[in-house]
Amino acid sequence: MRNFDENNITRAVLERLQNSVSPRTRQISEAVVRHLHALIQEIEPSQQEWLAAIEFLTATGQMCSDTRQEFILLSDTLGASMLVDAINHRHPGEATQTTVLGPFYVENAKQHALGDMISHDADGAPLLVEGSVAALDGTPIAGAVVDVWHSDSDGYYDVQRQDGLQHLSDRARFVTDSDGRFWFRSIVPAFYPIPNDGPVGKMLDAQGRHPYRPAHVHFMISAPGCDTLVTHLFLADDPYLDSDVVFGVKDALICKLEAQAAGITARGNAIAAATAALRYDFRLAPA
Amino acid sequence: MRNFDENNITRAVLERLQNSVSPRTRQISEAVVRHLHALIQEIEPSQQEWLAAIEFLTATGQMCSDTRQEFILLSDTLGASMLVDAINHRHPGEATQTTVLGPFYVENAKQHALGDMISHDADGAPLLVEGSVAALDGTPIAGAVVDVWHSDSDGYYDVQRQDGLQHLSDRARFVTDSDGRFWFRSIVPAFYPIPNDGPVGKMLDAQGRHPYRPAHVHFMISAPGCDTLVTHLFLADDPYLDSDVVFGVKDALICKLEAQAAGITARGNAIAAATAALRYDFRLAPA
Repeated sequence: MRNFDENNITRAVLERLQNSVSPRTRQISEAVVRHLHALIQEIEPSQQEWLAAIEFLTATGQMCSDTRQEFILLSDTLGASMLVDAINHRHPGEATQTTVLGPFYVENAKQHALGDMISHDADGAPLLVEGSVAALDGTPIAGAVVDVWHSDSDGYYDVQRQDGLQHLSDRARFVTDSDGRFWFRSIVPAFYPIPNDGPVGKMLDAQGRHPYRPAHVHFMISAPGCDTLVTHLFLADDPYLDSDVVFGVKDALICKLEAQAAGITARGNAIAAATAALRYDFRLAPA
Repeated sequence: MRNFDENNITRAVLERLQNSVSPRTRQISEAVVRHLHALIQEIEPSQQEWLAAIEFLTATGQMCSDTRQEFILLSDTLGASMLVDAINHRHPGEATQTTVLGPFYVENAKQHALGDMISHDADGAPLLVEGSVAALDGTPIAGAVVDVWHSDSDGYYDVQRQDGLQHLSDRARFVTDSDGRFWFRSIVPAFYPIPNDGPVGKMLDAQGRHPYRPAHVHFMISAPGCDTLVTHLFLADDPYLDSDVVFGVKDALICKLEAQAAGITARGNAIAAATAALRYDFRLAPA
C-alpha cells in the first residue's frame, strides 16, 4: 500500500498491527493509533507544532534520572494517573481509598523499628504517626510491610536534595506488630510544588496552573493475599486540598492532626514530649 | 474539587485549563486530555501496564541524542508523521508531493558546488542526480537551497556511523543555478531498517512488523516566497515500496533509475563514466 493521506492512513496503520505478538499488544497498539490519529485530526498541528510536541516529549524523557521521573509527573498533572488508579480500584468496598504513587517512591527504603524517629529535619514540627492495618473484616494483619515517605518542612523530598539517594530522610519501612499496628515519629510535612524546573513545569505555566500539592504522607502497604495499597493521608485545612495539581485528594484520606501530650498515648505508645499526632486505620482489599 | 473518579476526572482536568496563556494552548491541552483519557478508558491499563508505558516513553526520550531522534521514529512508525504531513499539504495542486522528514536531517550541511561527488562510500554504485526547481507555473527558481541526504550502500546514514557528525557523507547542500537546475554525483542508496536497537525497535517486534524503508533520497528545498518542500525520491522496484515502515511512499515520488553513458547528458552535464541516473523536476507551492 502507498499514497497515504488523512483519509486512509489510520486504517493502513491498523492493518499493520495484525501480527502483534499477543491480542493485548494488538488491542493496546490499535487503541493508541486510533486515539493518537484522532487527536492529530482534531488539533491539526502545524509541522512546527508537531516538532514542538516531539521536543517536549524528548525533554521529558531526558529530565528523568534515578531520582526524578518527569513522565510520571506528566501523567499525574494530566489526571491520567488518577484515572488509571480509579479504573484499577473500582470496588474498594470498605478498603482504604487509593491515590497516586507519585514520582518519589524509593524501592527498598531502610527498615526501622516501630517508634523510631525517621526525619533528619531539625526545623520540622514533631509528628507522631500511629496506624493499624487490617483486612476488610477488621482482622488485624501482623507482618504487613508499611512504606512511608513525605516531604520535609520546606516541601522537599530527600531524593530532591543534592545528596539524593545517599541520605534518605522522612522515609522508612515498618512491619506491623502482632496486632497489625505500627507507629513512628517524624515531622509535619509541608505543602509543596511538584518539581517545576522541567518540561512539566513549563506545561503548567502555559496552562496557567499552579504546581502545588497539599501536605500529605505517602503510604504503600502490602501483605500476603492482599492488594497492595498505595495512598496518602492529607492534612486537614491545607490551602491546596481543592486544587491539588495531580487531582489526588479524597475526603476519606484527609486527617485532622490531633494534639498529643507527653506520656502514654491511647494506643499505648510512650511519647517523651508533646506532639501533633496523625492516626489512621488502614483496611486492605483481598488480592 | 476532590474525590475524582473515572466519571468526573476528565471534566475536572479540563476545568483546570481555563487560564491557559493562549486559546491555542488551551485547545491543544484540552484535546490532549480528552483523547488521552479516552485511550485509558478504552484500554483500562493495569497499574503495571501504565508503568510500562511510562518506562517506554522515558526510554524513548533517553535514546535521543544529537544524531538519534527516537520520538520522531515513534511518530513515523505510528503513521503520525505522515498524517501531520498530509494535514499540512492538503492542496498541493501541481506542487511536488511531500513525505516525512525522518530523523536524519542535519542542519547546515556542507554546501557543495554543482557536479560534486558527495559520497565517501567506495563500495556504492555510481549515481548521477539531475534536478530542477520551479514555481507552480513552471518558472525556474534560481538560488533555491537544495538539501539532499541518503543512506550509503549498506543502508546507514553518515550520522549513524561511529564518528557521527564529524564525517558527513551522502549528504550536501546545493544552490540552483540561474536556470533553477542542480546536479551532483553520489552512490545508489540501499533499503534499510530504521534504527531498531531502541524502544521503537522493541515496539515493532511486539507488533510483528519489519523495520524496513525502501531505498530513497531525501530532499528539502527552500526558496523565498515558497513553501519549503520536504520529500524523498524512491527507487522503483524496491521490495519495500508497499510496506514502508513509516508509510511514506507515494507513486508520484517513485523514480526509475536511467542508464547514462559517459559524455554530456541531455541536461548538459559532463559525466566521465557510465552511471545510473536519477532525474526529477520539483515544483514548489507558494508560501
